[in-house]
Amino acid sequence: MSDSVKYLLPEDRIPRAWYNLAADLPAPLPPGLHPGTGKPLGPDDLAPIFPMALIAQEVSTEREIEIPEPVREIYRLWRPSPLVRARRLEKALDTPARIFFKYEGVSPAGSHKPNTAVAQAFYNREAGIKKLSTETGAGQWGSSLAFAGSLFGIEVKVYMVKVSYNQKPYRRALMETYGATCIASPSNETASGRAILAANPDSPGSLGIAISEAVEVAAQNPDTNYALGSVLNHVGLHQSVIGLEAIEQMEMAGFWPDVVIACAGGGSNFAGLAFPFLGKKLREGKDVRVVAVEPAACPTLTRGTYAYDFGDTAHLTPLMKMHTLGSSFVPPGFHAGGLRYHGMAPMVSHARELGLIEARAVHQNPCFEAGLLFARQEGIVPAPESTHAVRAAIDEALAAKVEGKPRTILFNLSGHGHFDMQAYMDYLSGKLEDRDYDETALNASLDQLPKIAAE
Amino acid sequence: MSDSVKYLLPEDRIPRAWYNLAADLPAPLPPGLHPGTGKPLGPDDLAPIFPMALIAQEVSTEREIEIPEPVREIYRLWRPSPLVRARRLEKALDTPARIFFKYEGVSPAGSHKPNTAVAQAFYNREAGIKKLSTETGAGQWGSSLAFAGSLFGIEVKVYMVKVSYNQKPYRRALMETYGATCIASPSNETASGRAILAANPDSPGSLGIAISEAVEVAAQNPDTNYALGSVLNHVGLHQSVIGLEAIEQMEMAGFWPDVVIACAGGGSNFAGLAFPFLGKKLREGKDVRVVAVEPAACPTLTRGTYAYDFGDTAHLTPLMKMHTLGSSFVPPGFHAGGLRYHGMAPMVSHARELGLIEARAVHQNPCFEAGLLFARQEGIVPAPESTHAVRAAIDEALAAKVEGKPRTILFNLSGHGHFDMQAYMDYLSGKLEDRDYDETALNASLDQLPKIAAE
Repeated sequence: MSDSVKYLLPEDRIPRAWYNLAADLPAPLPPGLHPGTGKPLGPDDLAPIFPMALIAQEVSTEREIEIPEPVREIYRLWRPSPLVRARRLEKALDTPARIFFKYEGVSPAGSHKPNTAVAQAFYNREAGIKKLSTETGAGQWGSSLAFAGSLFGIEVKVYMVKVSYNQKPYRRALMETYGATCIASPSNETASGRAILAANPDSPGSLGIAISEAVEVAAQNPDTNYALGSVLNHVGLHQSVIGLEAIEQMEMAGFWPDVVIACAGGGSNFAGLAFPFLGKKLREGKDVRVVAVEPAACPTLTRGTYAYDFGDTAHLTPLMKMHTLGSSFVPPGFHAGGLRYHGMAPMVSHARELGLIEARAVHQNPCFEAGLLFARQEGIVPAPESTHAVRAAIDEALAAKVEGKPRTILFNLSGHGHFDMQAYMDYLSGKLEDRDYDETALNASLDQLPKIAAE
Repeated sequence: MSDSVKYLLPEDRIPRAWYNLAADLPAPLPPGLHPGTGKPLGPDDLAPIFPMALIAQEVSTEREIEIPEPVREIYRLWRPSPLVRARRLEKALDTPARIFFKYEGVSPAGSHKPNTAVAQAFYNREAGIKKLSTETGAGQWGSSLAFAGSLFGIEVKVYMVKVSYNQKPYRRALMETYGATCIASPSNETASGRAILAANPDSPGSLGIAISEAVEVAAQNPDTNYALGSVLNHVGLHQSVIGLEAIEQMEMAGFWPDVVIACAGGGSNFAGLAFPFLGKKLREGKDVRVVAVEPAACPTLTRGTYAYDFGDTAHLTPLMKMHTLGSSFVPPGFHAGGLRYHGMAPMVSHARELGLIEARAVHQNPCFEAGLLFARQEGIVPAPESTHAVRAAIDEALAAKVEGKPRTILFNLSGHGHFDMQAYMDYLSGKLEDRDYDETALNASLDQLPKIAAE
């Protein structure tokens, strides 16, 4: 009946070093710029909000960066994560393609986010930091940092986008269960939040606003650092455990993927799976297509401009060269809250500019259709974000069927959907809309991109 | 930092046979009785609602019953499940005790229930059955059977206790995502449901009522069978994979447990972990204490009568000799919906009468206190039901501390609490009450136990 096959690694195969794509890129990554001076960032610019170990990782071009033993020990709570050949799904699609997925939903918070949350909490504790501030949209990142904070005795304060704070009380409850404090953003606790509320008391908030609040708190309190769950180089670096394990597991299965697929919001689960495969391609010439999938309603890679932009709304963050819809862009409502960011990881954007990766945008109804089919064949209900990768994997498998040739597909199932059942209810009841972004508003947002003399 | 240790078995160590405690009991289990005649049940009495393979398992005294290969193949989606030494929790308690837990929340539905749901769906499909009806309280069982039905192409109809149907829409959404139909019980679809609604249009429903509806539908439709998620012998049998794996994993860890602990509602996760250890005790004289933990508000083992009783409210089921609070008993509100049943598995009750197991009752606030401590140390948020086992395990560890002697504790973490965050929110906000059952109502319910000539 079921012959879906799970490939498991023993615990001693948890990677001992993270993989850094920067070492293998044919052209260096454009540097981050100081938001005031427009000059390349130095370590001192970031020291008020990050520990020095993470700042060093952010700019490192070393290929391998050792994973500290206490971090590996905590990884053992759920790693190595399974890689599964989805034979039941293959049969349901009647495709000659081989479909593999790497499953990151086995972590305590239910997604890939703890891979970096644990590392960030560790380095901050080593630096003597007792408090971390952060932002969260749908809550995957906030609950992961709350989990990591509880393990290392760090107080975690999470600014949660207000509309999600109200709509997703259970994610908030998860953060509080782990001992974190969760605050609806915009809040009255920060100047950034008060400014937004003064202009619009009913603001539903946004990731960009919440980042501003969390950065402000960290910048102004010497005992508090800031943690970001995606976008930055060190975050993608920590996520490389996904791809490093997957390479070994694909070897166990006896296949090299023709195509590697992941959804992309800020880019971290995508980088985590794809970059180690890209490294093999760059170093050893092993051919592989790499596909980032994003929501059609927030099409950063497929419709954004590659330019220097701020990571937040209040323009407190450094300027990063990335694909961006502009920091004032507000996407229409859709359920994959983790994919609602205006920008993209600079390293992912750079790889796209170098022609190393493909990108495609999909609407949410076809994604949930794919998620439902996947759940009924493989048993796991994908997170709304992850359904984007499932959709693209199914489309690749259907293309192989039309072609009548096998194709080996690997995608990242970055998390489970147990906290997102409202989205499935809406889909099942036919209430989900496939809304597009407002072209005029996007153009207005892009018009406001900062003018950088250096460019 | 973290040195909690996970003991993993390779997939080929998924048990090849279930273990049946009936083979090793010093006295035979009293038989089930026909609800009309009061005579011992024959296979023909059960044939309208169960496939013959399950009826045979229900009365088998064979020690080992082979697990069909298609069932083992589906088990591989999540089994063998991890056994973890909770060293972080040990440290937090500063106890000399060794605390181990077996984690069943790794299944696609998030609990131990798929262990039997998959087996039941398999045997029904082998018997040519296309539809299954069942009941569910909080939704753990309903979503597990929905999952199993989706794998075997069986239509699943779930009667869900109305108060949970309204309060837990996300569990319902999970069943629908797996393709099942979910109906609020009492419903107008059955004579049992209509009778309840006629007497009380606002009835919140109960597990006993939902069982009546599901059994009625199966009894009256030749193409439909009934599936029960706990209580029956064949259900406990299927759950024995938990304990069989745990015995191997404890050997890997180098310890034999002094005490084995699980929560008990209908008794299936308790039987699943404990019976294989009890078998070792009975056959090989290996000493082990076995503790069932139940809610103080529904204290079946600690306050119920050991007598023949019906499994449902409308008295459609066979009579089973068990610890019972009477089929008309309604417990006060509390969050562990899976522990709200008036009866107890006959095999668990029988073992209790034989002096093989202990039982204790606990209030919900101390359970959630234990669940929160566990989540912050080990990362996993326990289901409300499972917090009962966590509480008892912590109490054993604290007793070892007072005694100043090591003690090896093993408990079943039967599921995660991601669908139960409302309960944690209530606990965190101080809103949870420790309500006791109504003594007068309990006595009235016990007075109505059926009078059986055979006794």
